[in-house]
Amino acid sequence: MALAHKGLAHQTRAIKFTEADRIAFSGQGKVPVLVDGETTVHDSWAIACYLEDAYPEAPSLFGGDPARMLTFFVNHWVDRSLQAALSPILAPCVYDAAHADDKAYYRETREARYGRSIETLRGERAQRLPALDRALEPLRARLEDSPFVCGDAPAYGDYLVFAEFQWARCVSPDDPLTEDERNRHVRAWRERMLDLFDGLARAMPAYADEA
Amino acid sequence: MALAHKGLAHQTRAIKFTEADRIAFSGQGKVPVLVDGETTVHDSWAIACYLEDAYPEAPSLFGGDPARMLTFFVNHWVDRSLQAALSPILAPCVYDAAHADDKAYYRETREARYGRSIETLRGERAQRLPALDRALEPLRARLEDSPFVCGDAPAYGDYLVFAEFQWARCVSPDDPLTEDERNRHVRAWRERMLDLFDGLARAMPAYADEA
Repeated sequence: MALAHKGLAHQTRAIKFTEADRIAFSGQGKVPVLVDGETTVHDSWAIACYLEDAYPEAPSLFGGDPARMLTFFVNHWVDRSLQAALSPILAPCVYDAAHADDKAYYRETREARYGRSIETLRGERAQRLPALDRALEPLRARLEDSPFVCGDAPAYGDYLVFAEFQWARCVSPDDPLTEDERNRHVRAWRERMLDLFDGLARAMPAYADEA
Repeated sequence: MALAHKGLAHQTRAIKFTEADRIAFSGQGKVPVLVDGETTVHDSWAIACYLEDAYPEAPSLFGGDPARMLTFFVNHWVDRSLQAALSPILAPCVYDAAHADDKAYYRETREARYGRSIETLRGERAQRLPALDRALEPLRARLEDSPFVCGDAPAYGDYLVFAEFQWARCVSPDDPLTEDERNRHVRAWRERMLDLFDGLARAMPAYADEA
C-alpha cells in the first residue's frame, strides 16, 4: 500500500517461512525486503522511510518530518500493543493456514516465543480477546473523529494499522472486530482501507472467501 | 507547557474538585479551561488546537496538519491506554493528597468509576503494575530512537504524555517507572521534560519533596 500510495510500479514475491535463503542477499532473514535497482532495504519502517526520501516528488507517506516522527510512534503502538494482543490469537490460525513445508518451523518458533503450545494458544483465544479489545481503544477514539488515522486522507499511519486487520482477514475465520456499536467506526474505516487503490487489499483472498 | 512552547504570557489558577462553579462560565465543569480575551475554551485538545490556530506565528505545537492528526492519536493513546492503566493506581494517592473539602466528592466519583472502593484500589496496586508496564511499551520503543516523542525537539505530543508522569510525580510517593534498564530512555526523557522552559515542570512540588 505504501508503494501504491507513492504510485510506484512494482512486483511482489511471497516467500515461505522456510525460504529465508531467498532473501539472504538482504543480509538478514525477515520480510519485507524491498529491491529498488541497486538498493536493497529491509524492515517495513526503513522501507517506508526509504520510499519517502527516494521519491520526494510522489505523494508523501507521512506529510512532513514531524508527522514522520509521530507515525513512528503509531508504528510502535501497532507492534507493541495491537500486534502484541493480536498475534497470540492469530498464531493457531497461521499454523493451520501455513504451507506443509512451514508448519514444523512455525510451531517451533511460535511455541518458543509464547512459551506455550499452538493447542494451548487455541484454547486461550476467548480469554485473550479482552486484551485485544482494550488495545483497540486508541484506534476507536481516533476514528470517531476522522475517516482515517491520518485525517481526511490515508497515509502510512493508516497502512501500518490496517496491515494487522489484513493479516487477520487472510488467516482467520474470526473477525477480530466484534459487531457491536463501539467498533462501528473501525469497521467502516477497514472497509475504506479495503477499497483504496481500486481494491488492492480486497483483491487479496480472505480466509472466509477461501473456506 | 503548551503555553510556554508558544511563548505566551499567562496566569494559572488551580481549583478544587468541588469548585466547578468557578469554571461554570465555560459552560461545563472540567479543567483545563483557557480564557484568552473574549474567548473561553475547555478540553485540553481543543485548547491546544485553539493555541495553534490563534497564534500561528509562534512555535508550532504540532508541526503541520498531518502531525496534528497523528498527535491526536497519541492523545487518545494517553487517555485510553496509558492513563487507563495509571489512573486506578494513582486514585488512592490522589485521595490521600486531596483537600479535605474534596475527599468525599473524590471518593464517591472514583469509586463509581472503578466499581470498587479506594481501599480496594490501594490493595490492587501491585497486581495493576503489569498492565501499566505493558501500556508503556510503545513509548519505550519510541524513545529508543529519539530524545523526544516528537523527534529531536519536544512538541505537544511530548507534553501530553509527560502530563501523566507529572501527575504521578505530584501525587504519589512511588515512581510509575521501575528502575530497570528497559525504562532507561523513558526516565532520561522525563528528566529532559522536567528541564524544559527553565524547569517549569520541576518547579511544581513533587510528592517526594513535600513529604
